[in-house]
Amino acid sequence: MSDDLFIKMVSTLTSLPGIGKKSAYRIGFFLLRADDATFKQFISNLTTVKERLKFCSVCGGLTEWEICDICSSSNRDSSIICVVEQPEDIFFIESTGEYKGKYHVLNGSISPLDGIGPDQLRIKSLIVRAEQDAVHEVLIATNPTIEGDVTAAYIHNILKEKKIRATRIAHGVTVGSTIEFADQYTLGKAIRSRLVL
Amino acid sequence: MSDDLFIKMVSTLTSLPGIGKKSAYRIGFFLLRADDATFKQFISNLTTVKERLKFCSVCGGLTEWEICDICSSSNRDSSIICVVEQPEDIFFIESTGEYKGKYHVLNGSISPLDGIGPDQLRIKSLIVRAEQDAVHEVLIATNPTIEGDVTAAYIHNILKEKKIRATRIAHGVTVGSTIEFADQYTLGKAIRSRLVL
Repeated sequence: MSDDLFIKMVSTLTSLPGIGKKSAYRIGFFLLRADDATFKQFISNLTTVKERLKFCSVCGGLTEWEICDICSSSNRDSSIICVVEQPEDIFFIESTGEYKGKYHVLNGSISPLDGIGPDQLRIKSLIVRAEQDAVHEVLIATNPTIEGDVTAAYIHNILKEKKIRATRIAHGVTVGSTIEFADQYTLGKAIRSRLVL
Repeated sequence: MSDDLFIKMVSTLTSLPGIGKKSAYRIGFFLLRADDATFKQFISNLTTVKERLKFCSVCGGLTEWEICDICSSSNRDSSIICVVEQPEDIFFIESTGEYKGKYHVLNGSISPLDGIGPDQLRIKSLIVRAEQDAVHEVLIATNPTIEGDVTAAYIHNILKEKKIRATRIAHGVTVGSTIEFADQYTLGKAIRSRLVL
């Protein structure tokens, strides 16, 4: 066995998020066993996407161009901006089919322990966009974590001063699950956010 | 969002074993966010290892050379050959520090449903190696699955005819676990393979 070389492959793969040593072994051997054409295609796919994808200069989402499809689309409602922490959150919200407005990516959340304050996030550009006449609502979809909640409260305060309507996605019991399996914080939030039927 | 390009990256990543859609999204965004130097290093590490690693012409394990370190080492016991299904199994056995002999990789196990018979495996070359005077034991370490057991029995029968000693690694209750969590088949095997104290 040529330990050093393979260990190099394993440590390269464990640098990826969510990949532990056992997964890295499995993926490493899969790549070693793949025929050369398949391996080259794999590498070229990753490289092409990496080279071509950029971040939209308006919303911060992924795009091949200067401005992304959603920002430049006339079919999307420009009166509402959905604020998310990461570009990938746009994919998850789009997959619901429930949202037809525009987006704004913060690139993180306020986290003093990690040295991330409001100035490190794309908050100023959000406020500039929200102050445009056409915008009637900012839907804050940061994560239901302490950092996400602090970020939501921070943005809400600024928007309140500027008299711009802010909303936040609901947090509650997972659809299809049971109350028994909801943790106490989620269940508490679901009770406080109860809706009149 | 530039869906098509990113979806291409996601589907490239889900082609890896054990990587589902959610993991592929997470890894994909990690690679997109990585700076160019880190990304290039990642790709070059994988490519270098893929180009340089080959399979040992004797045991079938991984090596940079014609014959691997273990096969060419004079510090390893040539009187015992450990038979494994896959090259990666050598890593796992080496990590125990309990084995000082040589190896032989079958490249799979007998599985008629998948069209894999003894001729598709490296069994003939194993028998040739085992018939050398110096070999006193063949330790069969195929997986404790139906296919692994059938393969072990097949090899055992050939070795018995040739009067070569065959052994098999023990199967039983996981060390550090409790009897309660062992499945009935493992527990049954552990009872049948009980040792005199």
